[in-house]
Amino acid sequence: MKLDVAIIGAGPAGLTAGIFVRRAGLKVACFEKLAIGGQAALTYSIDNFPGFEKISGFELMDKISTQAKNLGVQIEYCSVEKVEQLNNKFILTTSMGKVEANKIIIACGCKVRRLGLDNEQQLTGHGISYCASCDGNFFKGKTVAVVGGGNSAIADVEYLHNIAKKIYLINRRDVFRAGEFQLNKIKAYKNVEIITPAVITKFCEKGGELAGIEINHAGATKTIKLDGVFLAIGSYPELDFINFNLNLDQAGYIIVDQNMQTSVKNVYACGDVVSKNFRQVINACAEGATAGNSCVYN
Amino acid sequence: MKLDVAIIGAGPAGLTAGIFVRRAGLKVACFEKLAIGGQAALTYSIDNFPGFEKISGFELMDKISTQAKNLGVQIEYCSVEKVEQLNNKFILTTSMGKVEANKIIIACGCKVRRLGLDNEQQLTGHGISYCASCDGNFFKGKTVAVVGGGNSAIADVEYLHNIAKKIYLINRRDVFRAGEFQLNKIKAYKNVEIITPAVITKFCEKGGELAGIEINHAGATKTIKLDGVFLAIGSYPELDFINFNLNLDQAGYIIVDQNMQTSVKNVYACGDVVSKNFRQVINACAEGATAGNSCVYN
Repeated sequence: MKLDVAIIGAGPAGLTAGIFVRRAGLKVACFEKLAIGGQAALTYSIDNFPGFEKISGFELMDKISTQAKNLGVQIEYCSVEKVEQLNNKFILTTSMGKVEANKIIIACGCKVRRLGLDNEQQLTGHGISYCASCDGNFFKGKTVAVVGGGNSAIADVEYLHNIAKKIYLINRRDVFRAGEFQLNKIKAYKNVEIITPAVITKFCEKGGELAGIEINHAGATKTIKLDGVFLAIGSYPELDFINFNLNLDQAGYIIVDQNMQTSVKNVYACGDVVSKNFRQVINACAEGATAGNSCVYN
Repeated sequence: MKLDVAIIGAGPAGLTAGIFVRRAGLKVACFEKLAIGGQAALTYSIDNFPGFEKISGFELMDKISTQAKNLGVQIEYCSVEKVEQLNNKFILTTSMGKVEANKIIIACGCKVRRLGLDNEQQLTGHGISYCASCDGNFFKGKTVAVVGGGNSAIADVEYLHNIAKKIYLINRRDVFRAGEFQLNKIKAYKNVEIITPAVITKFCEKGGELAGIEINHAGATKTIKLDGVFLAIGSYPELDFINFNLNLDQAGYIIVDQNMQTSVKNVYACGDVVSKNFRQVINACAEGATAGNSCVYN
């Protein structure tokens, strides 16, 4: 297969990149190893994507992928095992064969770290969330916990303190990795209670929804009734399949410029795989649009 | 009126910023002097906004503004005449009175330069466009003209050359302000014809759609049959109402960082008013989301 542009990933970023590349008349395909829509498709309910008052992640991603397909974006269900540079071209080794492309867009997302508890996956979207600024609004006046000790955990508490009635901040160590200024700010909020050192040992469930957590707090077992838990224990991209050097940040995310250009010519990146502060579906889409347009104009 | 965040403009950027600020539980209003949706609302048809295969700009902006209102974003129909800084607050003088805000988001868009011909406004969206990457896809296999001599005109030709059958590039002077590399690239395309020095003197119309143009080419009058005209003769923001210094680029657009932060603390900007390469509705929305989130977290 020979393409103008090969896009690795068919989440919101990859699909939107496809839409913008295809509309300019170029030959483009998205390669997806799991399911269309990436992590966004697993989101129970989205109310902050402009244009949709409330929509499931699955339905939104289905609409975007249909739109992309109808515009002529090819979508291939296969894993990309290797990407190499050869004479100003890129050769992708995929589970369905070799692909040659003039330009590539990396849009393969990132993985969130999970606690790994029994019913964690099935309660995701039913009380368990990995993104406060995505799902916080669904917990107005409710009691929630934020789990983690880094800047993103503290930012989640900051975000939630005007929404939730009560927020527990749970960290497995007494010391926080987060910046002191941000930490002191949230310590001053009356509806925030910090519990350390503590680890969640069990998610309690009632009728398919999270009802609380069991924690081990300094050796003692304790149960807390809760409406929601926000896990902010990290995320990471998987880029082993890229066979050349790309500038990455300390956490392994791809560094791009305003045009979504990476440190390598004709290689663009967009969506959750990119080094940035806010990981939202709408931002992933816009970065896809920019990466797509950059492929066309450069 | 006292607000956490005052947003100047209720186009895609301003409304989405409102959605993100409001969802975090803050008090926020958008101030709009013309009509909800800004320039996007005047767009006849949009097929590159992810989630909507084809939608009028008016309908899309109506959906986004309804969503914002239902989440609790106030929308005030009034012009903002002055914004001043006073003791770490911002005072807005509007046509409906004074407003005090802790943070402001500037999302007032930009104006496109028009040729100023008789039926130009009424043919906009019916053959006349100011954005090739927005509307180019509607002219597959058609004959179009691009008007202008700067980088954006050349970029429009670059964008359109894989889509349109034939492209006339019309410039009022023989010399182009655009970069030589880009210019030589498009000169090599077989479906591009450059006509200089030439100015459009009339838009020809048939059944409410553009049918061609009359030009004055080096003194002689000539008619060209066309399906579309892309006017790339510039755009500019209007920021006279801001009463303090903001870092602007050479063309007068606001310089922001990755978080949509301007050079002044607690002042953010997003959408067409910002210094950037690609002006798309989806990008404006995402910048609004980022500006909104930045207000919440900082």
